[in-house]
Amino acid sequence: MRIDALDKACGRERYAVDETPPDCLWAGALRAGIPHGRITALDAARARETPGVVAVLTRADVPGTNRQGIVHKDQPVLCGNRVRHCGDAVSLVVAESRDALAQALSRIRLTLEPLPGVFDPAKALAPDAPLVHSGRDDGNLLARGLMEKGDAPAALARCAVVVEGRFETPMQEHAFLEPPNGLARLAPSGRLDLVVSTQAPFRDRFEIGQALGIDPQRIRVRAPYLGGGFGGKDGATVQCLLALAALRVPGRWIKMVWSREETFLAGYKRHRAVMDIRLGADADGTLAALECRMLFDVGPYAHLSAEIMALGMEHAAGPYRIPNTRVEGLCAYTNNPVGGAFRGFGVVQATFAMERAMDLLAGRLGRDPAGLRRQNALRAGEANGVGVSAEPGTDVAACLDAAMAHPLWAERKAWKMAAPPFIRRGVGLTAMHNGMGYGRGLPDHAAAKLELTRQGTFRLYNSVPDMGQGNAPTFAAMAAKALNQPQTAFTLLQPDTQRCPPAGSSSASRTTYTFGNALLGACRAMATKLRHRASLALLCDEPDRLVLVPGAVSDPATGRAVPLAVLAGFLSRDDRICIDQHTMAVVQNPPATGREFRFGFPHRFYAYGACLCGVEVDTLTGTARLVQCFLAVACGKVFSLEGVEQQLHGAAAQGAGLALYEDPVLQDGHMRAGDLCTYLLPTAADLPDMDCLALDDDEPTGPMGLKGMGEIAVHGPGPAVAQALQDAAGFFATRLPVSPEQVLAAMEDAFS
Amino acid sequence: MRIDALDKACGRERYAVDETPPDCLWAGALRAGIPHGRITALDAARARETPGVVAVLTRADVPGTNRQGIVHKDQPVLCGNRVRHCGDAVSLVVAESRDALAQALSRIRLTLEPLPGVFDPAKALAPDAPLVHSGRDDGNLLARGLMEKGDAPAALARCAVVVEGRFETPMQEHAFLEPPNGLARLAPSGRLDLVVSTQAPFRDRFEIGQALGIDPQRIRVRAPYLGGGFGGKDGATVQCLLALAALRVPGRWIKMVWSREETFLAGYKRHRAVMDIRLGADADGTLAALECRMLFDVGPYAHLSAEIMALGMEHAAGPYRIPNTRVEGLCAYTNNPVGGAFRGFGVVQATFAMERAMDLLAGRLGRDPAGLRRQNALRAGEANGVGVSAEPGTDVAACLDAAMAHPLWAERKAWKMAAPPFIRRGVGLTAMHNGMGYGRGLPDHAAAKLELTRQGTFRLYNSVPDMGQGNAPTFAAMAAKALNQPQTAFTLLQPDTQRCPPAGSSSASRTTYTFGNALLGACRAMATKLRHRASLALLCDEPDRLVLVPGAVSDPATGRAVPLAVLAGFLSRDDRICIDQHTMAVVQNPPATGREFRFGFPHRFYAYGACLCGVEVDTLTGTARLVQCFLAVACGKVFSLEGVEQQLHGAAAQGAGLALYEDPVLQDGHMRAGDLCTYLLPTAADLPDMDCLALDDDEPTGPMGLKGMGEIAVHGPGPAVAQALQDAAGFFATRLPVSPEQVLAAMEDAFS
Repeated sequence: MRIDALDKACGRERYAVDETPPDCLWAGALRAGIPHGRITALDAARARETPGVVAVLTRADVPGTNRQGIVHKDQPVLCGNRVRHCGDAVSLVVAESRDALAQALSRIRLTLEPLPGVFDPAKALAPDAPLVHSGRDDGNLLARGLMEKGDAPAALARCAVVVEGRFETPMQEHAFLEPPNGLARLAPSGRLDLVVSTQAPFRDRFEIGQALGIDPQRIRVRAPYLGGGFGGKDGATVQCLLALAALRVPGRWIKMVWSREETFLAGYKRHRAVMDIRLGADADGTLAALECRMLFDVGPYAHLSAEIMALGMEHAAGPYRIPNTRVEGLCAYTNNPVGGAFRGFGVVQATFAMERAMDLLAGRLGRDPAGLRRQNALRAGEANGVGVSAEPGTDVAACLDAAMAHPLWAERKAWKMAAPPFIRRGVGLTAMHNGMGYGRGLPDHAAAKLELTRQGTFRLYNSVPDMGQGNAPTFAAMAAKALNQPQTAFTLLQPDTQRCPPAGSSSASRTTYTFGNALLGACRAMATKLRHRASLALLCDEPDRLVLVPGAVSDPATGRAVPLAVLAGFLSRDDRICIDQHTMAVVQNPPATGREFRFGFPHRFYAYGACLCGVEVDTLTGTARLVQCFLAVACGKVFSLEGVEQQLHGAAAQGAGLALYEDPVLQDGHMRAGDLCTYLLPTAADLPDMDCLALDDDEPTGPMGLKGMGEIAVHGPGPAVAQALQDAAGFFATRLPVSPEQVLAAMEDAFS
Repeated sequence: MRIDALDKACGRERYAVDETPPDCLWAGALRAGIPHGRITALDAARARETPGVVAVLTRADVPGTNRQGIVHKDQPVLCGNRVRHCGDAVSLVVAESRDALAQALSRIRLTLEPLPGVFDPAKALAPDAPLVHSGRDDGNLLARGLMEKGDAPAALARCAVVVEGRFETPMQEHAFLEPPNGLARLAPSGRLDLVVSTQAPFRDRFEIGQALGIDPQRIRVRAPYLGGGFGGKDGATVQCLLALAALRVPGRWIKMVWSREETFLAGYKRHRAVMDIRLGADADGTLAALECRMLFDVGPYAHLSAEIMALGMEHAAGPYRIPNTRVEGLCAYTNNPVGGAFRGFGVVQATFAMERAMDLLAGRLGRDPAGLRRQNALRAGEANGVGVSAEPGTDVAACLDAAMAHPLWAERKAWKMAAPPFIRRGVGLTAMHNGMGYGRGLPDHAAAKLELTRQGTFRLYNSVPDMGQGNAPTFAAMAAKALNQPQTAFTLLQPDTQRCPPAGSSSASRTTYTFGNALLGACRAMATKLRHRASLALLCDEPDRLVLVPGAVSDPATGRAVPLAVLAGFLSRDDRICIDQHTMAVVQNPPATGREFRFGFPHRFYAYGACLCGVEVDTLTGTARLVQCFLAVACGKVFSLEGVEQQLHGAAAQGAGLALYEDPVLQDGHMRAGDLCTYLLPTAADLPDMDCLALDDDEPTGPMGLKGMGEIAVHGPGPAVAQALQDAAGFFATRLPVSPEQVLAAMEDAFS
């Protein structure tokens, strides 16, 4: 059992939002409310007079650069004269109570002069488009990239068959359980303490330091368990606002919790994207060439848009063997909500487009869509879409085989025939791949610290936040296995920049791989240390002969053992600590393309998968339901099948949301479905029991053979449901989510 | 330059004896003064009344077992009813001043009833000998050992030539500059703090804990630089007495410093030994068989006598190829001063006997003694005297060759002919070997801790005391080289059981090897850590590409660097520390002999050497002087030639003292030369400039290729001077030291 299971089940586990120190102050931001405008006045006098209000801060109170952003720093902490999306913060209030805070926020008189906005990324790139940021040479173009292999235009001209299409994916809300929140306090020592629901506590120090002109060494960030993150807590949410409040109101803890509505309004979203694809093949279905153009709706601030675009481009050709590819990416600023990191990180969009193009091609060739995929599946040693040689373990073919052998696929005709009245059934099968880790340019690093306590148990210092995916208890289980101790001998300390050695963010399917490798290194160091120290007590001249047994170090030659509790008593604290680190290896001799991407391109190895979906469509209402889902993945060795299945289920659920439900209904920069009453999110009742198969894969560089699999399954349901809908209702979806109205209309066309 | 050189030259370095806290108390012991007796009364009343006296303690005040001893615990902290040698402590006084202490000690009325003593180890083993310890089944026999290879008696019977002789070596005083001393305090927390001039701070905790019934975890021992040790501070000297005083007078620092006379009286000595040898060879000089019987004069307490005997036995056959050996060892209790560890550790005695036997054999065969040695020199892969296969690097032949090529040997005839009037000259050349480390049974372990300070410099936690041999600054130099930093970037912290990870004693030529290996491991861990952490600052995705340069980590690919001082600021203290450890590998498949030795037999590899001595004898007085000395050694790679030469010089000087000067003149358990006025110690004026050659040896398991060489050269001058005296004056010495009277008598015999 996961060592955190009981505490979580009993509600004992502490999340950032659970921390409310007695006498803490409350902070909150006033948001712009309009997508684009000039601030002509901000009158805080009445707000300041509100009983219980401690401070009302504006742009003038922000020291430092007032700029946030992980790579490209373009997002103000507080806007001074211009707002660029509805969620922009213009004022920060600190008050003694939540009531006083709410009252004060309502009493700030903000006068905005609306400016023409731009809400469509294609239009944003037109020469006469309103500018989101003035003074930029590139206007609203944040970034453009090109990845090429071979000569795609020439190859397409020679192809026996060429299909083309435009595909669109929607903005998506992370919808984590725990909203962005945290606490900050400027201690008398000058140290700025934060407890935040964040995916990147170590990076946060620099983000805050840069934005507010503080030495990052003065900043301590703690990141307890997160009630979900999915990328939406990778980057500044509450951090700089809280730090600003703490700087201005020193000495007391200040808490900020975004409401659900504020989270929709101000949080990052999955980028809307539009993909234009031309895919060509020989008459026998052998893929020959791909052209793809991806356009991402950045919103007004960069966040990781260029990096997300790069990852999407890297994956645009799918897990297939295509000799000629040309992938262009564009990121356009708009006045829509801010696009940012989200599980799948650009690959979700690319996968939907490419898999749909494969379906088009299968249709054109009169081929079974699964067989066409199987025929072109990338094999180890072959160059992938961007020219990187696929590593051993590249087993998308085996994943497809597993899905094709599944009864839902093998016996799909019978299943479809057995549909109840007014129901039509369809089955879809698509392929997936997902790069592991940060990729080239940014060291994918983690350091792990393990302490033998004075009592002979172990304290594991986790450096990469656990968003709920279970990496923290997995670390304990891995260490327990490595040290041959019961899991109950381990306590977990969650990320704390002061007590834990540094690590990168909890993202990019990297936590178990990178921190896991570091942790196993620390475990090896600990085991070696314990054997050597125990050899002194056991008078054993060959420490390597000693073995760790639960609670002790034992000498098999003599049967004697020394309890860890005794051994620990003789070791100083420094000597009870082992730290090791790992940096993921990068591609050697990367291809000559994509050089405009400093960070994140290319990746060295990938997880692969196949997604098989069975859909039922109500012929009366057009309502589609995902009723069966099988996921086959190759993601390295399985350490915890339960953990793998939970991640696959969760990711596929988020993919299913994207396929059939989730849409914030954007209108001129406003989300018309900006809360959980109106934003449709699939619940457990909307989803089937899922069936998972993790292939017997093995990543030789991974900890205990693991890769990572936090993201892979999010890519499948979008295209697989779309293919199934085509099978069921003859509707060829080119954009997600698919609405009942669309399906109904298609059926009426088809069967009328 | 050694980083401690300036502080030592300027007298700034702090030794234990330099620490005199304000308001500290002084402790001193009353010694028995007779070699064997029964305590019939001890009247401390007048002592207690002495102004300034805080406590007068006797056996009744000792908690715990009252027993000291590293392996065999037979030495009381304070004697209760019986004394067994002149130096036995019977009472411990604690006073406010040294004067009050002296006065009180003089006022204790100790009444002893003398008992018959035993002062000759051979007589001690006779059935009717007075017993040093009553109630032992073995009487005065502390230990007996036998090491056999082949069938020596049978082989000797077949030999063309057999020589035999009895050889004796004297008791020797360590005569370190700084006498045994230390400080202790029982802190209010219950912790017992000691600062002691000791070679084994980590072991001392257990010694004290056992003797006085204290939890060793409560004891902290610090060991500053020692003003010499040579084995004489390996084991309890002041430790238990100081701890006893501290327990009885809590809260204040208590200091104890032995006078020179007390050091002679109560300190450990090199064991007197008597060796009977039969050595047989073929007619061509090929060694065929050896029988050797070694008898050690233990004194009344075991200390490490059995282990010293074992090491002597292991080395008894010299660095030669002898197919049949039979070595018997005996340790006899007497009422002489206590024998204990001393540089050379039993090998000095064995070497003198075997090398003299080789000279006898050379004489009998009419052979050049050097050529005979060269002929039989052990080569790598051959079984040594106890059947252990000699490791690669076993280059005693090369050492002998180097000595034979030296002008003193090659041109010895001319040199002898050029002797001034009334002077006769002679040259001697002998071989040496010395096992490295503890040998089997006791883990030869050290752990090293290296800290990157907040300022970006390094603090090196030395765990093995530096007795003056310079291991501590060598560690700094090794770490500096390993990390590519200037030595000035390192500060040294001397052994402290609370702050340093554990290590074995400073002994057995092991410190540089074992701690050095641990330290290089810590340096590797530090370098890896620094590269990985710096990769975050330098945004380098291949940390292995980064290089350490003085004061920084640099990226050769970009030319960018991050100063260590900046990097250190971002690391928590735990993350600035690296600890690694090493345990010396032991012989696999040890021979079936010597199984009675749990600790220390056999050794895996050895240092080798040849010692060439030129001696001048005054024909009028018989006075012999060592006037030339050349030492060739194979002791692994040379890290610091200056350091190697200093150790060779020092060890050879101690060997020369044994050869010609040092004799405590034992009479019935009393040392008639028990101080530095009467005990002859060679000074710099008595010794020649020495010439050293360290061969280009390489120990693959050693740190930077090192073995150890703190002891090897002590073995040479005894037999080499003896051989030279034979060459000069025709006197065949069988016992050391050689007196002018003996030489004169021999010359009168020879030339009259």
